[in-house]
Amino acid sequence: MEHYKVILAYDGTEFLGFQRQSKGRTVQASVESALRMIGWNNSSIIGAGRTDTGVHASGQVIGFKYEWDHSAEDLRDALNANLPADIAALSVEQVGEEFHPRFSAIARRYHYRLFCDKVRQPLRERYAWRVWPPISLDLVDQAAAKLVGTHDFAAFGSPPQSAGSTIRQIFSATWRIDQNHLLFEILGNAFLYHMVRRLVNCQVEIGLEKRSPSDMEGLLSGEQAELVQGLAPAKGLVLKEVTYPKQVG
Amino acid sequence: MEHYKVILAYDGTEFLGFQRQSKGRTVQASVESALRMIGWNNSSIIGAGRTDTGVHASGQVIGFKYEWDHSAEDLRDALNANLPADIAALSVEQVGEEFHPRFSAIARRYHYRLFCDKVRQPLRERYAWRVWPPISLDLVDQAAAKLVGTHDFAAFGSPPQSAGSTIRQIFSATWRIDQNHLLFEILGNAFLYHMVRRLVNCQVEIGLEKRSPSDMEGLLSGEQAELVQGLAPAKGLVLKEVTYPKQVG
Repeated sequence: MEHYKVILAYDGTEFLGFQRQSKGRTVQASVESALRMIGWNNSSIIGAGRTDTGVHASGQVIGFKYEWDHSAEDLRDALNANLPADIAALSVEQVGEEFHPRFSAIARRYHYRLFCDKVRQPLRERYAWRVWPPISLDLVDQAAAKLVGTHDFAAFGSPPQSAGSTIRQIFSATWRIDQNHLLFEILGNAFLYHMVRRLVNCQVEIGLEKRSPSDMEGLLSGEQAELVQGLAPAKGLVLKEVTYPKQVG
Repeated sequence: MEHYKVILAYDGTEFLGFQRQSKGRTVQASVESALRMIGWNNSSIIGAGRTDTGVHASGQVIGFKYEWDHSAEDLRDALNANLPADIAALSVEQVGEEFHPRFSAIARRYHYRLFCDKVRQPLRERYAWRVWPPISLDLVDQAAAKLVGTHDFAAFGSPPQSAGSTIRQIFSATWRIDQNHLLFEILGNAFLYHMVRRLVNCQVEIGLEKRSPSDMEGLLSGEQAELVQGLAPAKGLVLKEVTYPKQVG
């Protein structure tokens, strides 16, 4: 059986997240169902990241084994013909058996989009968080700079395994203006559960001057016993890219 | 009773167009229902343009009479509190009684967004048409340039009244690259039913070299008895702005 790596995009609005559940529509179950319609009969696919309910992706990575007799491009087209309109396989490639979507990954990139407006904006709010009053780009960018490096992010999320490490390495974290939005981009080796949404919410509090940028240092010291309160809404978050070492992915 | 002008934005996906119908969810009925919830009891609002099923707006204009005792800003907030999430009142202002959203308008601006990709893109396709193979920006822009001026657009749409005029004046029509999309922007005094979507579809045929840019001249001569075939999908179209003379709107 060959091993395949697939880059997936999805609009997370109508999904109860990536991971298959006993009830409810999930990305994993939808992809497995599309694969079964083209003859695949393994038990499950593996995803690089378990995006939450409502979180979007333009670069989620999944892996599975499959005895497929045609080209990778044919597999992509067959998969797309059977996936619902809110999921697409952007690319399919054959990889070595050492490839694991989660464990082989060396970095993940997320985008979080928000805009500041007193009034609702129906054409923007599917993919962005509306914040009012306006936040200071300078203050959130000061806070973001403090995230870079290796820190204990225990205040910002729970590890996938209980008592697992909460140390993560952030390679870059920036805010910029993009098409009438403020865009937060973060690249790290891995992320805790809800970590990006907690980081965004905390930075927005800093941008609203409810907190000081220097608070971030205390929160990253690992001495904070409890999770910070407040999650930015899922709809602003997109898993943009998962990176693998050249020889693997 | 005072006269009010409201600029509306809506995501058209879940509406059977602007105009109230005996059955089905429409923008007009949703706005009238929100107004009734805050005490308005006239029979109907008037819209500047009757957008079709699935067409979006960020600058639709409506007008109505209302005896409202508070500020225009309060009316905007009260309206937004009662409108569904996919419609918002961006601004509300009091206007003179000579203001009519449709008859006073001197220009309408529409945007149509498309992108060229072999593979579906779930995060883009709510607001854009996916076209494949790629179209030539040079060819569609040549075709768009021919639209400017006063022409008989009988080949591209039906007039609102039967046997009404099909002559319309186009002030500008351009294609440009915008955030991985091709964006068609057209500004005209008024538009026939389905005119922008027929113009886009015809230009895409030109961009795919199924037609020549010079075909446009024949189609605009008024000698074409039948409508051209093919409508670009509604989801790519946004009514961006309706313009009024300074002393009126």
